[in-house]
Formats: sequence, C-alpha cells, structure tokens
Amino acid sequence: MRFDDKSIRVSYLVTSPPGEIEGIAEDIALEQTVEVPKSVIKDPWIAKEIIGKVTAIRKIDGHAGDQFAVTIDYPQIVSNFEIPQMLNLLYGNISFKQDIQIVHVDFPRAFILSFKGPKFGIEGIRNLIGVYDRPLIATALKPMGASAEQIGELCYQFALGGVHIIKDDHSLVDFPFCRFEDRVASCMRAIEKAAEKTGRRTLYFPNVTDRYDRVLRNIEFALERNVGGLLISPFLTGLDSVRHIAESEWVNKPLMSHPSLSGVYFTNGKGGVSPDIILGRIFRLIGVDCSVYPNFGGRFAFDQDTCLAIADSLRDSFYDLKRSFPTPAGGINLRNVPEVINVYGKDIILLIGGSLYARSDNLEENARYFYEASAIEGQRA
Amino acid sequence: MRFDDKSIRVSYLVTSPPGEIEGIAEDIALEQTVEVPKSVIKDPWIAKEIIGKVTAIRKIDGHAGDQFAVTIDYPQIVSNFEIPQMLNLLYGNISFKQDIQIVHVDFPRAFILSFKGPKFGIEGIRNLIGVYDRPLIATALKPMGASAEQIGELCYQFALGGVHIIKDDHSLVDFPFCRFEDRVASCMRAIEKAAEKTGRRTLYFPNVTDRYDRVLRNIEFALERNVGGLLISPFLTGLDSVRHIAESEWVNKPLMSHPSLSGVYFTNGKGGVSPDIILGRIFRLIGVDCSVYPNFGGRFAFDQDTCLAIADSLRDSFYDLKRSFPTPAGGINLRNVPEVINVYGKDIILLIGGSLYARSDNLEENARYFYEASAIEGQRA
Repeated sequence: MRFDDKSIRVSYLVTSPPGEIEGIAEDIALEQTVEVPKSVIKDPWIAKEIIGKVTAIRKIDGHAGDQFAVTIDYPQIVSNFEIPQMLNLLYGNISFKQDIQIVHVDFPRAFILSFKGPKFGIEGIRNLIGVYDRPLIATALKPMGASAEQIGELCYQFALGGVHIIKDDHSLVDFPFCRFEDRVASCMRAIEKAAEKTGRRTLYFPNVTDRYDRVLRNIEFALERNVGGLLISPFLTGLDSVRHIAESEWVNKPLMSHPSLSGVYFTNGKGGVSPDIILGRIFRLIGVDCSVYPNFGGRFAFDQDTCLAIADSLRDSFYDLKRSFPTPAGGINLRNVPEVINVYGKDIILLIGGSLYARSDNLEENARYFYEASAIEGQRA
Repeated sequence: MRFDDKSIRVSYLVTSPPGEIEGIAEDIALEQTVEVPKSVIKDPWIAKEIIGKVTAIRKIDGHAGDQFAVTIDYPQIVSNFEIPQMLNLLYGNISFKQDIQIVHVDFPRAFILSFKGPKFGIEGIRNLIGVYDRPLIATALKPMGASAEQIGELCYQFALGGVHIIKDDHSLVDFPFCRFEDRVASCMRAIEKAAEKTGRRTLYFPNVTDRYDRVLRNIEFALERNVGGLLISPFLTGLDSVRHIAESEWVNKPLMSHPSLSGVYFTNGKGGVSPDIILGRIFRLIGVDCSVYPNFGGRFAFDQDTCLAIADSLRDSFYDLKRSFPTPAGGINLRNVPEVINVYGKDIILLIGGSLYARSDNLEENARYFYEASAIEGQRA
C-alpha cells in the first residue's frame, strides 16, 4: 500500500507469539485512536477516516524470540496537527505495553507545515557567531551551588578561551543561592568583558527551565539582557511549551534543548521510542536549534549508529524546516574530539562539560586547548 | 543514618557487578546534582549542602544477577521546591541509564508544604455528588470521530443510567469534527436534561488537554459552562501546568488525570520509576483529585500489588494534603466489579469505558447495570 501523504505512518517493532501478531497490530490501531473494540464502531466514516490501518506486518529474522515489523497509517487529522495529541497518538496508551517499540515515523507534508521548526538552525547560529569553517564548541557552567558571581567568572574564562556557546548547566535553576536574574546579569557582563578583549562573539545560553508560570518571565528577562540563546529541557516544561516559545515572534534567539528525563523512552529493551524520533525529528519540529544528547563512548548508553541517526534527523532535508545542530555531549573529552568530528562532520556543536573542568585549574587554557583540538584547519570534515 | 527532615530521600534498585556498586551509587549522587567529578568540587559548602549523600547500600538476596537497594539523601534545596527541578533531580540524567530504578521517595515536610495538593479530594468530590456510601462510577465518552451532538447523546444516556462522573475520552481534543466548545455545550445540555428527569447530580469532565496556548482558554470556557470537573493528561501538557492549574484560585472544579505517555516510566525492567510515585505521590502533589491508572487484570501490565501501592499513595495520610480518588480503569468490566471493590474498598472511582459500550446497544441500561453491580448495600467494602 502506497504512503498516501495524508497519513502519519508509524513503524513499530513488536515482540509477539507468531499466531497473535495480526490481532496485536489491530489492537494498536484501535487503542491509539477510538479506544473501543472494533465491533462498537458502526459509523463507516469513523472506520475509514479515524482508525489506523495496519499496512504491513513482516517477521524479522535472526532475533531470539519472535519480532515483527508492523506499519500502521493513521489519518493525519487524528493528530489534530498539534504536539500533545500527536504524542498521545504515537505512544499515549501503548506506553503501558511492554513489547511495542516505535522505530520510525513518516510525517506527511500538511502535518509538518503546521509547525515553524527552528528559527535559526545551523546557518542562523553560524551567522550569529561568524564561524563557518569548523565545528562549534560549547561548555556548561557548573556546579550547582556556585554563586552567580562565581558562575560569571567561569563564563569569563571560557569566553576568553574561545568557547563559542556557553550554557548554564541544565540543573541551574532560579535557586536562592544563585538567582536566575543575577546569573544572567553576571554572565552577560562576563561575555561583554571577554569580547572587548578578544574581539570574538560568544553566545551565552541561560537555562530558562522553570515552573509553568515562570518560564516566559525568565525568557523576557534573558532577552532584555541580550543573551545569545536559551537553554530549555522540553521534558521538564512540556514539549509544547517549547513549540510555543519557538513560534513566538518576540523570542528572537536560538533554542538549545537538554534531554533531561527523556531517557525513559530509550532504555526499555523491547519498548519505547527511538532516540532519533524524539531528540531529532520531534525536537526539530518544536523548534529546537541545537539538540543536546548523550554521545557514544560516554557514561550513557547510546551507540554510534544511534547518535548518527539523531544527527541525521536533525540535519537532513525535511520539508521546509531549517536544519538543527546536533549537540553531542557527555561522551566527549579532550582526547577523542578529532574522532567525534570525523564521525559527524563539521556541522556539529561539541559540548564538553566535566572533563573541561577536570583537565586543570586554568579554565581559559583548557578552553583554548579544546578550541584548537576541534579545529579542522583547511580540511573538510 | 536518621532521615533528617531536610532531605529528599530517594531509594533506588540498582543492578550492578558487586565490586562496582559503591562507585555507581556515588556517581548517581553527583550526576543528579553537581554533574562534575568529585575532584572538581573544592567548595566545602557545595560538598555538604548540594551533593546527595549515599546513606545505605544493601545487597538484595534471591535475585538473578546482583541487585542492590541504594538510598541517597538529597538536600531539599536542590529541588528548589518546584516540580520541574524535582523531576530533574529524581530522574533527569539517570533516565539514560539502564539499570537504575526509583522504588521509593520520602519527601520532607517543608518540600510538601510548598504545594497545595488536591483542592477537592475524595471528600470534596463526594460532597459535589452527594454520594457517600458506595464507590463512584465513571465512564468515558467516545469514540474519536463522533460529533459533538453524538457525544452529547451518549452523555445523556449514561447520566440517565446513574454514572456519577462522565469524562471525555482522553483522545477527544479540539477536533474540527467535534470542537471542544461544541462538545462541552452539548454535554452540559445533556447533563442538565438528565438531572431534570432523575434529580441526581452527574459530573461531566471535558478533556482540556491541548496546545500550551490553549489549555487555560479551554478551562475558562468549561468553567463558564459549569462543568463538573476537568480531565487533563499531565504528561501531554507538562506536569507543572497541572500544578499551576490546580493551584489557581479561579479553577474551582476537581481535576482528573489521565496517565497517557507515562507508561514509559514503568515498562523498563531494570530502570524507570515505580508507578505509585508518579501516578500516586507526584500526581497528588500537583493537585490531581482523581488519578486514572490501568487496573490489574486488564489489557495493560500492572499487577494487583502495584495498583494497591498507587491507591495507597493517593489515599494515605500525607502531611496536610487531601486524599485523592484512585480511579482504576482499563481492567474493569461489568463482571469483575465486586472483586475490584473488594480489593480497594469503597473510596474509589470505577472507570469502565469499552465494555460499557460493548454490553448492548442500550447504554442507559448498561450504565444502570454498572451502577447496581457496584453498589455495596449496607456492607462496608
């Protein structure tokens, strides 16, 4: 059956006894839409235009146990062309099932046209910094517990050392011992002071993640201080709040996402949703300009293929959406930088946190080392 | 070590090689707070007041593989007394780890006092309906694809039959073919018409889950029409949006939560978070008056102990928070109602969807059958 361009096509990996797979596939299509047994549906319009259609079931060879690739086409109107209902359609009720994994989603044009996507993207962020011929480098301001003044001092050292993007650690919130407004003011002073000395542009991204009633207030304050961009954790604030922010005309700075909490989607062996769908496709759809995710070889569980799939879903040609920066982190240290660049190419932001602090007490020098280690002088990576 | 009443005590189940458990436990305490190696922390205040303290590691016997019960006390200031940062503290980065499960959380008094919890609770909802001596019964309006008029007609039948709470299916959003405002108007007409006939009070809960910029608009409209309560899916809108709604003084109706998407926390064998923490404790904390969750014996994976743990965390004595209604669903049909009541007692809302539609075409009669099957005449369940 041909993909009809009016359906959201979801590909699942389903573990099932061989005799039951047809029934399970039908159940998914009902569960995620009408949520009643098929016998209850009497209206032919609902049967045709609402319930998902199972379009393929294929046994996968070479697996222990019985695994099947199942494809279901959902009429796109069922998504209501919005993020909360689209998430509900994809994985709402079946998130409670053990053996159903979403491995791919094809979105039709009309669905995607309902979203604006990244406002800046790779090209826009490069324009802001004026750097085109190399990967960008980034670091995080930490630890939690440091004062706004101390955080500002770290920011100054990193900016002097040549880091392009300096972000708050995602755990730095509006603490009494390091208020959001004080931290933004302190870091922006540091950024400006360093720029006077180096002549280079550095972008500071404060973490605006906060209570529902405070996120927009944080953003307003940050924009008034002319920050370089905004860091937000979509799974802490709700994914559609990020879409709303990205699509708001008054928010004229790039957004960087932190994947906090999203790991629950990726760590259940036979269930969950592929990381490239969430940290790639969906984050790009909601307007994320740079998506931070755990790199291969680090303290988290992603392998190289998974990371490349995320990068691909951020940077590929996808209707009219701008390309987003893959921002691998957590598995990069000062030794493996060339290898990481070799895997991804130059359109990437390398984020190093802990190991930039651990190298020596001279953070400016550590940053300079990072800057030089990540240059790709003359060569195309 | 005694629980000091200033810490959030998190109990983990960790799968680990025996020689590595101390290191892994330390890593969790660092990862969820300062996110740098311990050697980088020079400030003694941060070491003492910010980083989690591993207070217990105990090997669990009788498991295949090596499992350990690990307890870490986090200073409560690290939560910043707010939901997004509390979620980040609990499971933000470690959601990416395979073998760490959160099985229990003790919250100190000062943390809990920062929240208002349910506005109505069990007693408040019973007062609204005027029913005290039996479980409440509820159903869902569906299927997706029906018109506002058709949904209103279903609502009328169920109200005549004696259902106490009639909610939208959680997948009914503001569709072009069944607009939110039309549906609310249609259902409220049905509720009022039925009340004239029966003299009984029935509560209609429309689904207000929507885009970030529309949820509050939906609620305003629903409250103007004097609905009985509001249905919302916290994992679709963001948990803190629900907290904000529940704590808003102008929202003077009870909230029912649907657990859509939350299953990812519960289905990864050696990771995730216990259902009673999320669908019980945390939902109660954000102000949910009735928490819908999949009942044992149904098409989802929870067993009876898990369901009782959820019910317990909704109904137990928990500082000054009101008690919330456990609202098991999805595993209840018209045959096992007495058994379900026997397990939970009478302070429960029994939610039956599909099987109430499937019994016969006469929904009023089906509802009456449900009403009678769930009565506990004279006896204390």
